[in-house]
Amino acid sequence: MLLKEKNLDFELVCENPWDRKLEVFALDPAGEVPVLVEEDGTVISSAYAICEYLEDIYPHITLIGTTPAERAEVRRLVGWFDHKFDYEVTQNILFEKVFKHYAHHGEPNTGIIRTGKSNMLYHLDYIGHLAKERYFLAGDNLTLADLAAAAHLSALDYLGDVPWDYNQDAHNWYALMKSRPSLRCILTERVHGVRPPVYYENPDF
Amino acid sequence: MLLKEKNLDFELVCENPWDRKLEVFALDPAGEVPVLVEEDGTVISSAYAICEYLEDIYPHITLIGTTPAERAEVRRLVGWFDHKFDYEVTQNILFEKVFKHYAHHGEPNTGIIRTGKSNMLYHLDYIGHLAKERYFLAGDNLTLADLAAAAHLSALDYLGDVPWDYNQDAHNWYALMKSRPSLRCILTERVHGVRPPVYYENPDF
Repeated sequence: MLLKEKNLDFELVCENPWDRKLEVFALDPAGEVPVLVEEDGTVISSAYAICEYLEDIYPHITLIGTTPAERAEVRRLVGWFDHKFDYEVTQNILFEKVFKHYAHHGEPNTGIIRTGKSNMLYHLDYIGHLAKERYFLAGDNLTLADLAAAAHLSALDYLGDVPWDYNQDAHNWYALMKSRPSLRCILTERVHGVRPPVYYENPDF
Repeated sequence: MLLKEKNLDFELVCENPWDRKLEVFALDPAGEVPVLVEEDGTVISSAYAICEYLEDIYPHITLIGTTPAERAEVRRLVGWFDHKFDYEVTQNILFEKVFKHYAHHGEPNTGIIRTGKSNMLYHLDYIGHLAKERYFLAGDNLTLADLAAAAHLSALDYLGDVPWDYNQDAHNWYALMKSRPSLRCILTERVHGVRPPVYYENPDF
């Protein structure tokens, strides 16, 4: 999404981290995705390092902001979604329902999934609160904070686990995000054997 | 540690996040620490946003590096310690042994603590591997990667839970870190009712 918002050319290569391939560990000692491989062979791994690197070298369209205070607010919210939301919601739902299956880690734990769904409600209220005051999550403009939040929510939405009726302002913000080409191209992707809800791709949902 | 390495003046105020005080939520909607309050009233919360903000406005002594590739490597390792190490080691040991007690979340789970200690071993090997090749973790100079790693390890070392004999290169790197004034002032602090091991403060351990 960030590469697309910055109008950069790129080619996506699908890697399943649960396959634990040596080629992936050669690029990233943590064996995780995403990894960015530049044309000159430079390899950058981890979402945090990749996003800041893309801002450092392609600042023509900034997604982190210009003043130090704006940048701090964007980073606070990126941290919120990539760590707090990830830990309290995404890990509890996506890991249990999907990754456990692929990684052969046993059956989903319904108690953990329930905790994740219950935690999601106050996060939707927080998104709604920000979106009502600010248009986008960190201010007047689209930033990495919106991309981080939309990335997590679109994965959970694919599983039909986001109760959009719960907060109308959060719903309206996500409708706006769904109309961005950077999110729209992700929404056309499908996971083999899992069908998303009928409203998944529709910006009017 | 970052403020000290940058030679900035500051005053520390102790907050226990488990007290869930309204004053803390007023500064940070997540109710977490650290929070940075500037003299002009600017409030920055979350370690990620604070560290990048301090680099943005006080670049005279950089702890993230100068070239985009150097900065990406520092950030990859900061992410490694603040998320991967935190999730696999610190949360399993520090949360179970200490935070659970203060937050009245029940008894420590010895199985989780054992998992944390077992995970720590390959992290010590990784630190040793980096420190042997590079002097400091991200290269020739001290960076935020060293501070992040030392912050996690010093908390676990206070509990006597770091098996320093396991990797000599990791041990030597930490001895070097212990001699920095930025870490040394933290090592004099004590948690009420918990005595650290005798070697805790000693750079020759």
